[in-house]
This record gives sequence, C-alpha cells and structure tokens, in this order.
Amino acid sequence: MNEELIQMLLAFREERNWGQFHNPKDLAISLSLEASELLENFQWKSSEDAVSQKRQDIADELADVLIYSVYLADALDFNIEDIIRDKMQRNGAKYPVDKSFGKMTKYNEL
Amino acid sequence: MNEELIQMLLAFREERNWGQFHNPKDLAISLSLEASELLENFQWKSSEDAVSQKRQDIADELADVLIYSVYLADALDFNIEDIIRDKMQRNGAKYPVDKSFGKMTKYNEL
Amino acid sequence: MNEELIQMLLAFREERNWGQFHNPKDLAISLSLEASELLENFQWKSSEDAVSQKRQDIADELADVLIYSVYLADALDFNIEDIIRDKMQRNGAKYPVDKSFGKMTKYNEL
Amino acid sequence: MNEELIQMLLAFREERNWGQFHNPKDLAISLSLEASELLENFQWKSSEDAVSQKRQDIADELADVLIYSVYLADALDFNIEDIIRDKMQRNGAKYPVDKSFGKMTKYNEL
Repeated sequence: MNEELIQMLLAFREERNWGQFHNPKDLAISLSLEASELLENFQWKSSEDAVSQKRQDIADELADVLIYSVYLADALDFNIEDIIRDKMQRNGAKYPVDKSFGKMTKYNEL
Repeated sequence: MNEELIQMLLAFREERNWGQFHNPKDLAISLSLEASELLENFQWKSSEDAVSQKRQDIADELADVLIYSVYLADALDFNIEDIIRDKMQRNGAKYPVDKSFGKMTKYNEL
Repeated sequence: MNEELIQMLLAFREERNWGQFHNPKDLAISLSLEASELLENFQWKSSEDAVSQKRQDIADELADVLIYSVYLADALDFNIEDIIRDKMQRNGAKYPVDKSFGKMTKYNEL
Repeated sequence: MNEELIQMLLAFREERNWGQFHNPKDLAISLSLEASELLENFQWKSSEDAVSQKRQDIADELADVLIYSVYLADALDFNIEDIIRDKMQRNGAKYPVDKSFGKMTKYNEL
C-alpha cells in the first residue's frame, strides 16, 4: 500500500482528533460494519444486477473497508504487504495445487 | 497496492482454477465472513487483551480481508488507491475539521 | 418465545458463571459473529446446494443466533414478542401493500 | 415462538408478494446485515452509553434479526424451539460446568 496514501489517511484522522476512538476492538467492529454495508448492495439481487445497479456504492464501501484496514494495521503496527505475503505463503502450503485444483473446499476437508 | 503483489494473488487463484467461484456477490460474502473472523479475536475481551493474546490471528484475518478486497477490486475493475482517494475526498467534505473535531458523529447528525 | 425455554437459557449461563461476560456490546458482537457463521454455510454455493449439504450446520448456527438474541433481550429487558410486534406495526406503515407489492425496495426508495 | 406471531410474519410477506425473494441464501445474508445494524449502535461507544442512547434502535434491529430468523426457519422447515433445545443439549456436553465455570473459552481449548 502506497506509503503516501497511508500517511494521508492518518493525517485525516489526526486533523479531526479522531485517534482517541481508534482502539483496535472498535476498529475491528467498524471493519465488519463496512463489510456488511458492502454486502448490502447484493441483497436480494443477482451478482450481475448488483454490479450494474450499485457500482459506485460498492466502490465506496470497498474503499471504507480498505480505509479501516489501514487504520487497524497502523494501530497494530502491521505492514500491509508483509502480512498478505505471509498469509499467502501459508495458503500455498494449505492448498497445494494438485489437491485444490477446481475445488473451493476448506483445507481440513481436502 | 503494489502491482506485483496483486498479480501474485491473481496467479494464486488462476493456478488453482478458482476464478470460477469468484463472482462479486460471493466475494462480498467472503469479505464479510473474514471481517467477522477478525472481530472474533476481540469477543469477550478488552481491546488490549485481544491484541496481546491474538496478535498473529488478527494479522491473518486482516490479511484475508485485504486479499478478498484485491479479488473484489479485480472483479469490478477498480483501482484500489483511486477508490480510496475518491472516498477520502468526499469524506473531507462530509466531515469538515471545524464541525467534526473530536466527534465521531455520523455526518448527517453533525 | 416460550418462557420456560428462556429460563433454561438463563440458567445454563448462571450455572457456568458466564453472566459476567454478557454485557450488551459483547452480546451484540456475538450475535453478529453467529450470523456470519450461519452465512458461511452458503459461501461459494447456490442456495439449494447449501441447504441440501449443510442443513444441520445451518440449524445449529440459527439456534446460536436465537440463543444470543434471548441473552441480549434479557440484558436489555426486552420482551421478544413485543419488540417484534412493535417493529411489524411500523413496517406495515413503511411498506403499504399497494406501493410495495412484489418489490423489495427500501422504503425511502418506494 | 408463538405460532400466531409466526403466522402474522408469514402473512405480512404473502400480502406483499415478497416470498419470491426469500430464498435461504438471501435470508442468511439479510440476517447478517441486520445483526451488523444492531452492532452499529455500539460503534465507538461503551456498552452503557450505547444502551442509554440507542435503546429503541437496538430494539428495532434485534426485532429485525428475529424476524429474519423466523423467515429462515420457515424456509428450512425448522421449529425454532426444537433447534434451540437441540443445540443447548450439545452445548451442555461441550461445556460441562466443572470445566467451563467462569471461563469463556472455546470448547476445544478447555
């Protein structure tokens, strides 16, 4: 994640003195709430209809999920790209290509 | 978000022929499920206790949220940094510093 | 909701001295987590496949949602049937039959 | 759950020809969305502040969670009280009083 973008998000929060609210538990709650608001765009609709009717709303909610992800990573001193690479390395071991090809099964059921 | 990292995530999916499952609605569901798994680390605990006891689990679930965000952005042809900047610009207008300083109130209640 | 069943749920918690954990905020978090576990049964699947493959799991997670609903209602001194009737009365006004027939549109978009 | 209340909820849906939307997957999504709306009342606040400031909103969202629970149970032909009793019986075995007294630990970590 672009460092300048991360700094812009942190500055936005500082300017408004919102850091006091950003404890990890409430950030995790907020992340979950935004993910739900994103999903709400797909309620009662097919995937295609949702995408064609609610594209901008979906972009906005995905942005909110990413913004809270940056705040949570900052609160816990995580480097976003490091934690992704680390998880993907373990995913590669849990889901070897030969066993998981074409199958979306949880690793403990492969 | 680093382009090479995004390509690595897309390649991981291609190798396993998982693209067939990645329609936007199911990706939005998955994003919501991962956000809940992240929040689960804070269940029944104070923020501090959760962070000290479950740091690695929190990193893993945050990584999962970010990974699904990359897949969803890809499915909808969004540039992650563009949608964040775009949302932050509107957030700046909705939450002017003078009105929202020190207050975590929804913009329509400011 | 059957009063004897509610008492049984409260007794289960008392016997284990779990009341100390059941503050409304953590109960609300728990309710959300269980709703996600219920939804997880539908991840990557059509509605029909999920129901035929995961019927018992869905029943279990729905039970968990209902159990936490009872604990939350108890914590806030709500009568479950009263709050439902009260909400349905207002739903009837927000969604008059003539305007909402066959349409799953949010009331402010009718 | 009072049978007359369940019938009133089903009739409300029939009158508006909404049954066509109520497939189990979308009902599970809706249940999750309502649980998030309930949790939103606790965002950034202590449990006590949320309860004193947002009591009616919490009641409304809990009612929505329960209403969707009734619709989902109906769609899957579950008896609400039976699935609760069944789950509680297994919970009793998973969380024996002597092992779980005063501890909110997952059963596989007891």
